[in-house]
Amino acid sequence: MGTTQLEPVPEPKYQHLKTVIGEALDSEFAVGEILPNERELAARFGVARATLRQALEQLELEGRLQRRRGVGTTVAPPRVGVDVSTTQHSWPGAGDDGWQSLDSSVDVPPAAVARTLETEAEERVHIVRRLRVSHGQPVAAELLYVPEGSVPRLTAIDAPGPARARSVLRELHRLSLDGQDRSVELGSARADDAKELDRLPGAPVLVVTTRYLSGGRTAAISVATYRADTCRLTFGDSVDLVMAS
Amino acid sequence: MGTTQLEPVPEPKYQHLKTVIGEALDSEFAVGEILPNERELAARFGVARATLRQALEQLELEGRLQRRRGVGTTVAPPRVGVDVSTTQHSWPGAGDDGWQSLDSSVDVPPAAVARTLETEAEERVHIVRRLRVSHGQPVAAELLYVPEGSVPRLTAIDAPGPARARSVLRELHRLSLDGQDRSVELGSARADDAKELDRLPGAPVLVVTTRYLSGGRTAAISVATYRADTCRLTFGDSVDLVMAS
Repeated sequence: MGTTQLEPVPEPKYQHLKTVIGEALDSEFAVGEILPNERELAARFGVARATLRQALEQLELEGRLQRRRGVGTTVAPPRVGVDVSTTQHSWPGAGDDGWQSLDSSVDVPPAAVARTLETEAEERVHIVRRLRVSHGQPVAAELLYVPEGSVPRLTAIDAPGPARARSVLRELHRLSLDGQDRSVELGSARADDAKELDRLPGAPVLVVTTRYLSGGRTAAISVATYRADTCRLTFGDSVDLVMAS
Repeated sequence: MGTTQLEPVPEPKYQHLKTVIGEALDSEFAVGEILPNERELAARFGVARATLRQALEQLELEGRLQRRRGVGTTVAPPRVGVDVSTTQHSWPGAGDDGWQSLDSSVDVPPAAVARTLETEAEERVHIVRRLRVSHGQPVAAELLYVPEGSVPRLTAIDAPGPARARSVLRELHRLSLDGQDRSVELGSARADDAKELDRLPGAPVLVVTTRYLSGGRTAAISVATYRADTCRLTFGDSVDLVMAS
């Protein structure tokens, strides 16, 4: 495992190439500019196509490059910081939190969500779909799972999508919010989310899961899928800091 | 962009397959068990190898499967929650924070780090390497950048690696910590980090960047690379919650 290893690991070829390309991106290319094709790049840097492709893939993971079908590889703009701190306790949809309600349905949640909500097997819950827009771009798609028990006064609603979603949120806001916790992990974009976020299905995404607690139990769970290519998730603290982005 | 799109997007083939395999993992396989090879799996589920591979790749991104050279594809244990909240203000290395100091060197930092530290071009800074171990496994490798100006009383040290690293941290602790902020983004494992974390170079990782502020300026920057396959980063809040993991 080499935890006390002090000698630097020799740098693999594609990693050196990555550094060289990174410097070229800084000095020669503008944001949005289309890179020469793989054949030309491989010739310019004197490397095999496979090595080049490995370096490009990693620069894409790191948010330096974007690859789009039918366009080619372009220089990515710097990632935008999106605040996901939990310093302000509030229910989803309370105040202007940058999220748009899309619609709401009733369905059986995924097994992991059902376990945390402590709902019965096959028990259906409200599922509110929301979209977070930042600087005019969709940055996250959310599924908010709300069990029947959290919104007992909600009556049957025939209103269209967004109005129905807002009714569920309004009922949820009647509860007192006792606390919330949040986690971030790597995931892959589901087909729905990919479409909303203008990504390819299966692309790596950052999944932010939030538990909202009320009366000693989990009253709702939010599973939000953030674009990993354009977003940097920021967590401030009690001191008021402006993150240089 | 379809932000008001209400019809569900038709589920692609590999996504349905992913659900089916996910269910099989829950019901038929134990954690650590090796899956049948791709040919057998493709035959069992009646799909093309390419479709199967796409589904397996995404289950790997989501932390359900692990693929290791020379072993094959195994069922991954659930991801472990690793606390990265900033509710406690403290300098790196203050108290028992789960990090081990490895060594310290003096070198020119990456351009983005230099900009935030406001150091001169080509100005060298102290770089402390640390490793975070959780449940006996390395979960994160950190590079902590400390400019000369933050540790002015540090004298030339000939001590071996870890002692030298601790000297830098000890001097840093003399400053008053006025605040810190943190961000999480997707990255790819550098060769050094990959080795420490027992991953392949270029594997997707979660990069946690922390700015430590003192006297109106950035006194140090930590860039910590977390394993994305085994870790879920947790952010609690002021309410004391135990995250079910």
